[in-house]
Amino acid sequence: MNELYLEDLKVGDRFGSDTIEVTEQSIFDFARQFDPQPFHLDADAARQSIFKELTASGWHTAAMSMRLFVTGEFKPVGGSIGLAVDELRWPQPVRPGDILKLETEILDVRKSRSKPDRGIIRIRNVTTNQRGEIVQTFMAFVMVRRRPASD
Amino acid sequence: MNELYLEDLKVGDRFGSDTIEVTEQSIFDFARQFDPQPFHLDADAARQSIFKELTASGWHTAAMSMRLFVTGEFKPVGGSIGLAVDELRWPQPVRPGDILKLETEILDVRKSRSKPDRGIIRIRNVTTNQRGEIVQTFMAFVMVRRRPASD
Repeated sequence: MNELYLEDLKVGDRFGSDTIEVTEQSIFDFARQFDPQPFHLDADAARQSIFKELTASGWHTAAMSMRLFVTGEFKPVGGSIGLAVDELRWPQPVRPGDILKLETEILDVRKSRSKPDRGIIRIRNVTTNQRGEIVQTFMAFVMVRRRPASD
Repeated sequence: MNELYLEDLKVGDRFGSDTIEVTEQSIFDFARQFDPQPFHLDADAARQSIFKELTASGWHTAAMSMRLFVTGEFKPVGGSIGLAVDELRWPQPVRPGDILKLETEILDVRKSRSKPDRGIIRIRNVTTNQRGEIVQTFMAFVMVRRRPASD
């Protein structure tokens, strides 16, 4: 159930997620559809590439992180509507067998100046693997509804 | 064939892409896997949402844009290895039936200070629909190999 309004959020709040296991097949499937480069499509080609081993496309990691975000603890009313993403980084590669999870931290909360029914929050999303290594970070602006006066 | 070395690139160079048609089914398929929110999963739910109609997940647009990038005219030797993405924006929604294409512009070209076999370029990637409306923009740092002395 999506329950959170803007008024329920404050700077420093953190939200966790489920986990997702990265299979070799899922790396191949995503790459074939969206990032068809040999080092994401084939384990032998990956060993001969700069990566030295099979790794997931960064955009696959981003997509898996979105799944963790949407299915995780942060449940704004009306859903998570991202407006902008900044400083998307992949400090460590994602490999087959990795188990990813996400933590969301609220960095800023403000009301919309023009639209009284909503506000904008700034969040940092950090994706880690089973060893606690950070595999992806970004910041985003997300639209969140304000609580109606009648509630 | 991947042919371009760092020495072949200069600021202001532009590269085009093929096109990709966004089907309703592909929007549902991506959303089910990576962004399972009602307004990306179901046309009726979308009409009742803030979007008023079915739209693709922003991360789906990002993934389709990566496909256009990898299959497009910009063909660095060894592939496209993105290091960082900044200012990812979705100024217009992507809808079923849209036909997307990508343009890549080189913003900066520089040699690596620590690794003599490579350099880093900064690019802007702009995804447009069939009406020429911009549906996604971002900037990225991408690693590109330098031409070996023997070439």
